[in-house]
Amino acid sequence: MALPVIKTSVQRSGSFLRVATFSHFVSRSISASSSNLLCWNCKQSKFQSETSVCSSKTALSTRNWNSVSVATRKMSDFTGKDKDYIFRQLLDYKSFTYTYLLADPDTKEAVLIDPVYELVDRDLNLVKSLGLNLKFAINTHVHADHVTGTGEIKKKLPSCKSVITDISGASADIKTDEGSKVEFGKFALEVLKTPGHTNGCCTYVWREKGMAFTGDAVLIRGCGRTDFQEGSAATLYDSVHSKIFSLPPNFLLYPAHDYTGQTVTTVAEEKSMNPRLSKSKEAFIEIMTSLNLPYPKQIDRALPANLVCGVFDTE
Amino acid sequence: MALPVIKTSVQRSGSFLRVATFSHFVSRSISASSSNLLCWNCKQSKFQSETSVCSSKTALSTRNWNSVSVATRKMSDFTGKDKDYIFRQLLDYKSFTYTYLLADPDTKEAVLIDPVYELVDRDLNLVKSLGLNLKFAINTHVHADHVTGTGEIKKKLPSCKSVITDISGASADIKTDEGSKVEFGKFALEVLKTPGHTNGCCTYVWREKGMAFTGDAVLIRGCGRTDFQEGSAATLYDSVHSKIFSLPPNFLLYPAHDYTGQTVTTVAEEKSMNPRLSKSKEAFIEIMTSLNLPYPKQIDRALPANLVCGVFDTE
Repeated sequence: MALPVIKTSVQRSGSFLRVATFSHFVSRSISASSSNLLCWNCKQSKFQSETSVCSSKTALSTRNWNSVSVATRKMSDFTGKDKDYIFRQLLDYKSFTYTYLLADPDTKEAVLIDPVYELVDRDLNLVKSLGLNLKFAINTHVHADHVTGTGEIKKKLPSCKSVITDISGASADIKTDEGSKVEFGKFALEVLKTPGHTNGCCTYVWREKGMAFTGDAVLIRGCGRTDFQEGSAATLYDSVHSKIFSLPPNFLLYPAHDYTGQTVTTVAEEKSMNPRLSKSKEAFIEIMTSLNLPYPKQIDRALPANLVCGVFDTE
Repeated sequence: MALPVIKTSVQRSGSFLRVATFSHFVSRSISASSSNLLCWNCKQSKFQSETSVCSSKTALSTRNWNSVSVATRKMSDFTGKDKDYIFRQLLDYKSFTYTYLLADPDTKEAVLIDPVYELVDRDLNLVKSLGLNLKFAINTHVHADHVTGTGEIKKKLPSCKSVITDISGASADIKTDEGSKVEFGKFALEVLKTPGHTNGCCTYVWREKGMAFTGDAVLIRGCGRTDFQEGSAATLYDSVHSKIFSLPPNFLLYPAHDYTGQTVTTVAEEKSMNPRLSKSKEAFIEIMTSLNLPYPKQIDRALPANLVCGVFDTE
């Protein structure tokens, strides 16, 4: 009885992922082949025919490859990043705020994180041009540096629900708590409460994509201030270390702001290189209490509006 | 002779990708199993042992899985994006220029695309903090709106080579032509000449990652101007349609600029939604000749410096 020689190859073809398994027997007189393939994308369907698409139409199977070297050569035709999700980072040049659009291209359900009042038209044009249905407009916290776009979005898209944490003190359609899931299509954002910059601050974790949206808790080589609006350096330190820095090291961290033109960082980088948060708790508190920052420019306009999730008439 | 039943499963584990192939015979009296796995990441190594790491240390193989359902359940533990590459988008708030840092975390080799003179320290600090070795500083073209950081980078990192197309008219260590490859670690950027904004414009395609860096040829819902510096609307239209729009539709396009706070687009989006380039060639030329744009603010300072790839003393 000859043991089978099995070869497995994975290859992209357009937006499909092709998985092929070959088996042949090394014994001279016997030759046979068979395939039975699990779909990489939907993780359930199996391909039974030689060239077939799985039931969720996300992957294509074939076993008609000549050899592994053919598959390897065709790797140069990679079409790149997965298209099972849409991700856009958007910037407000005035307040240096990042807004994030996340969507499931299959169901078209989308969420916006931290939209900015003045840029609602830009964001909704993008949502519309991509054919998306905006389900939730989310705030990581009650911002003091810009007016949230949530209220304006709800005026223009009444079906969209506003989301903020329950202890933020702000009004919203949906109040979240630790472990709450904000679902859009096949995806969900998980809520981790990360107080310290404000009491109601949270981080939204998109676990399947290895991303976390940290608001003002962790910035790139920095963090949000803790000297007003219920701020507490000790609380922020504990939040970051117990929640955000305990995510896997290669998770991408997307902050609510950056003032240096950078767009993203990772858990590993901030754990080792953040000039404030990589220090001891005592040293962090000392740094934060010595900052002597100026009063936020937009706070007197932003806070009252943001406490009602932007529904407040800001005109 | 019983035919083998083969199952293939792919799973992430930390930053590793696990690939397992199972084979067993359906005949009651015969049972055998074997695995021979091609590495997904380095595409060459094969795993021979039951639990082994490939020679490039990018993937882990195991065949000790209980069942497909176990693999599916563990999908919820995804650690997210591939860590076989580093990608950072960086912004100059003054000229609205995007600089891109790409690197291979295994070999540490990195390239910077379109660095900006005033932000060289920020970029080199990031390169250093990530432990990278900057191999090339690349320009997509001779810019008229900002001074390239290439010369300053070479002063500070003499081992770094400057790169630009041969017909740009600018001096550089390496002159590229259609199809040239700019290699860093296990990756390569492919040069597509895309003239029209200037004669020497090119697009760098990172095919394996589904990304293209379009310079000023395609911007998000826009394009570079064609009314000075050898500009030609007809040439730009042909370049974009024959080269950039013929890339796979889900390729991400990263422009040299955006003025609206957007960061990325796709081939499919610009083909259908670009208000200029989605039109006919005749309509595009009409649009471009009617723009009546102001003289670029920085051109008198930027062009002489950029023609010598920033080595010119700009102080």
